[in-house]
Amino acid sequence: MNAPALTPQSAASINALRNLVAPDLAKVNRVILAHAHSDISLINDLTAHIVAAGGKRLRPCLTLAAAQLCGYTGERHVNLAACVEFIHTATLLHDDVVDASDLRRGTATANALWGNKSSVLVGDFLFSRAFQLMVADGSLDVLGILSKASAVIASGEVHQLMVSHDLSITQAVYEQVIAAKTAELFAAACELGAVVSEQPQWREPLRQYGYHLGMAFQVVDDALDYRATEADIGKAIGDDFRDGKVTLPVIAAYAKASPTERAFWDHAFADGAQVDEATLRQANAYIVKADAFNFSIGIARTFASNACDALAVFPDGHVKEAMLGAAMFAVERSY
Amino acid sequence: MNAPALTPQSAASINALRNLVAPDLAKVNRVILAHAHSDISLINDLTAHIVAAGGKRLRPCLTLAAAQLCGYTGERHVNLAACVEFIHTATLLHDDVVDASDLRRGTATANALWGNKSSVLVGDFLFSRAFQLMVADGSLDVLGILSKASAVIASGEVHQLMVSHDLSITQAVYEQVIAAKTAELFAAACELGAVVSEQPQWREPLRQYGYHLGMAFQVVDDALDYRATEADIGKAIGDDFRDGKVTLPVIAAYAKASPTERAFWDHAFADGAQVDEATLRQANAYIVKADAFNFSIGIARTFASNACDALAVFPDGHVKEAMLGAAMFAVERSY
Repeated sequence: MNAPALTPQSAASINALRNLVAPDLAKVNRVILAHAHSDISLINDLTAHIVAAGGKRLRPCLTLAAAQLCGYTGERHVNLAACVEFIHTATLLHDDVVDASDLRRGTATANALWGNKSSVLVGDFLFSRAFQLMVADGSLDVLGILSKASAVIASGEVHQLMVSHDLSITQAVYEQVIAAKTAELFAAACELGAVVSEQPQWREPLRQYGYHLGMAFQVVDDALDYRATEADIGKAIGDDFRDGKVTLPVIAAYAKASPTERAFWDHAFADGAQVDEATLRQANAYIVKADAFNFSIGIARTFASNACDALAVFPDGHVKEAMLGAAMFAVERSY
Repeated sequence: MNAPALTPQSAASINALRNLVAPDLAKVNRVILAHAHSDISLINDLTAHIVAAGGKRLRPCLTLAAAQLCGYTGERHVNLAACVEFIHTATLLHDDVVDASDLRRGTATANALWGNKSSVLVGDFLFSRAFQLMVADGSLDVLGILSKASAVIASGEVHQLMVSHDLSITQAVYEQVIAAKTAELFAAACELGAVVSEQPQWREPLRQYGYHLGMAFQVVDDALDYRATEADIGKAIGDDFRDGKVTLPVIAAYAKASPTERAFWDHAFADGAQVDEATLRQANAYIVKADAFNFSIGIARTFASNACDALAVFPDGHVKEAMLGAAMFAVERSY
C-alpha cells in the first residue's frame, strides 16, 4: 500500500495534531501534576520546575492521537499518556546527569539548579510513579510495552555512552543507538493507542509509525546541533560536539574528510578534548563542506516517509491527516 | 499474641535462614545472571561486577523464606526474589552517584570504576528489567507492591538528601527516612511470599515482619558507621559522618550535648565541612560519651522484637525459627 498523497492540511505542521489532542492534553497535564506530587517538598520543587518548563509533550500527544485514530472513546489514554511523559522526563533528568548540559528547552536544567543527586532520585521517583499509574490502569500489555521500552532506552543510553568519542562508528550503529534511546518510546507511545482501543491489529502499524517518526525526530535534532541558533531550538548549539557524541552529520562529514579534516575530527573527538568557539565553527564549516547537514535531513525525510506509509492501513480522516502532518513537520522544522 | 520464646536455633543467627533458602537462592542467582545480560557489553561489564561482588542477597532471601513460611511449592518466588534484588541493586547504583562513597562491600564501587553516567543508566536498566520480570510473572498485585516500594524508596532517598546536614531533625524524621529508603523494600520482599502463595491474610503480617526487620537492620547499619572497623562490615567507617547524613547515633548524642559538644557537631555537619581523622575520632568519642551507640542498638532491638511479634500468627516450625533468628541477628551482628 502507498501512503496517501498529503493534503495541504497535513503538510508539515504539528498544529493540527496539537489542536486535535488539546482537550485530552489538558487532562494529561492535570494527571501529571497530581501524580508528580509527593510529601517530600524537594520532589515537588523539582517536578514543578520540570512541569512548568513543560516542553512539547510530544510523546503523550502521540498516545492521545493514536487512541483517537483507533476511534477510542474512553479515558485510559489520558493516564497512559502521562506515564509516557513521566518515563520521558525521568530519562531527561538522568540524561542531565550524564551530559551535564547547561541548557535544555531554554531554561536552566534541573541538574544545574538542584544537582546530580536530586536529578537521579527524582527521575527514579517519576519512573516509579509511571509504573504505579500503569498498575492502576491494570493492563499487562501496557506494562509489558513500557517496561520493555524503559529497558531498551537505558540500553540505548549506555550504548551511546560506549561509542561516544568513537569516530569509527557507522551510520548503522548510530541508528541502533537512536532507535533505542528515542524511537522505542515514540513507538510505545503510539502502540498504547491501539492497546486501549482493543484493536490489536493496529498495534504494529502504530508502532511502525511511532518508530519512524522517532527516528526522523532524533536525526533532525542531531542535525540541528550543527545548524540552528540557540534561539531556534532553545538548546545550546554544539552540545553533542562538546560532549563527544558522534552523530550522523559527523559520521557523514568524517567519511568524506581529507587527511587534514580527519586530523581535525580526530583531535576534536579525542577523550578530554577541550572544544572552543573556533573549533565548533570549524566543525560547522566542515559539515557544510561535506553537505552533511542536508545528508542527515535526507535520511530523516526517508524515516518520516516510512512513518506516513505505516498509516496507510488506516482509513483517511482528520486524525490521520494530523499524524501525517506531524511526521512531515519532524523534518521540515529544520528549515 | 506474644512472640514465642526463642529457641537456641533461632537465637541471633542468619545461618538457618541461609541454609533454608540455599537451593532457591542458587536459582535466583541464575535468573539474575540471565536477565542482567544485554547486547551492550558495558552493561554486562558493570552487572558482572555487581553480581560478582554479590552482597548478602538478604532481600531475595526474605522473599524465598516468606514463600516457604506460607507453604508455597511453586517457582514464582524465584523470579520475584530476583526482581527484589534488581531493584535493590539499582538503588545501590544510584546511591553510589549520590554518596560518591569509595568503598562498599569492601570492593571498589561500580561508580568509582565506571563513573556516574554508567551507574545511573545501568541502574535504570536493572530497574526496567525488574519490571519486565514482574510483567512476565503476570500478577498486578506484585507489580503494585514493587512499583509502590520503588516510589517510596526514591521519596525516602530524596527526603534523606533534604535533611542531610540538618542536626535539628528528630528521631521520628530519621525513622521516616529509613522506613522509606530501607524498610519498605524489606516489607515488600516479605509480602511477596504471601502473594505467590495466594494467602492474602498473611500479606500484612509478613509486611510487618519485613518492615520491622528492615528498620532494625538500618538502625544497626547506621550505628555501625560509628563503631565497627572497616574489616567488620566491609564498608568505610565514618561514611555517613563525612557525607553529613544525620543518623540516630548523632541525633542521640546531639540531644545530650554540652554547649562545647554542640558547637563541635554544628561545625562538623555544616555544609561543605571537611572531616579529617581527628574530627571523626572526636565524633566517635562523643557518641561513646552519650552512650548513643548503645541507645541506637536498643531501638534496633525493639524493632527486631516487633518483627518477631509479627510472626506470632504463623504456626511454629523451622522456617519461622529461621526468620526469628534472622531478626535477632540483625541486632546481634553489632557485637
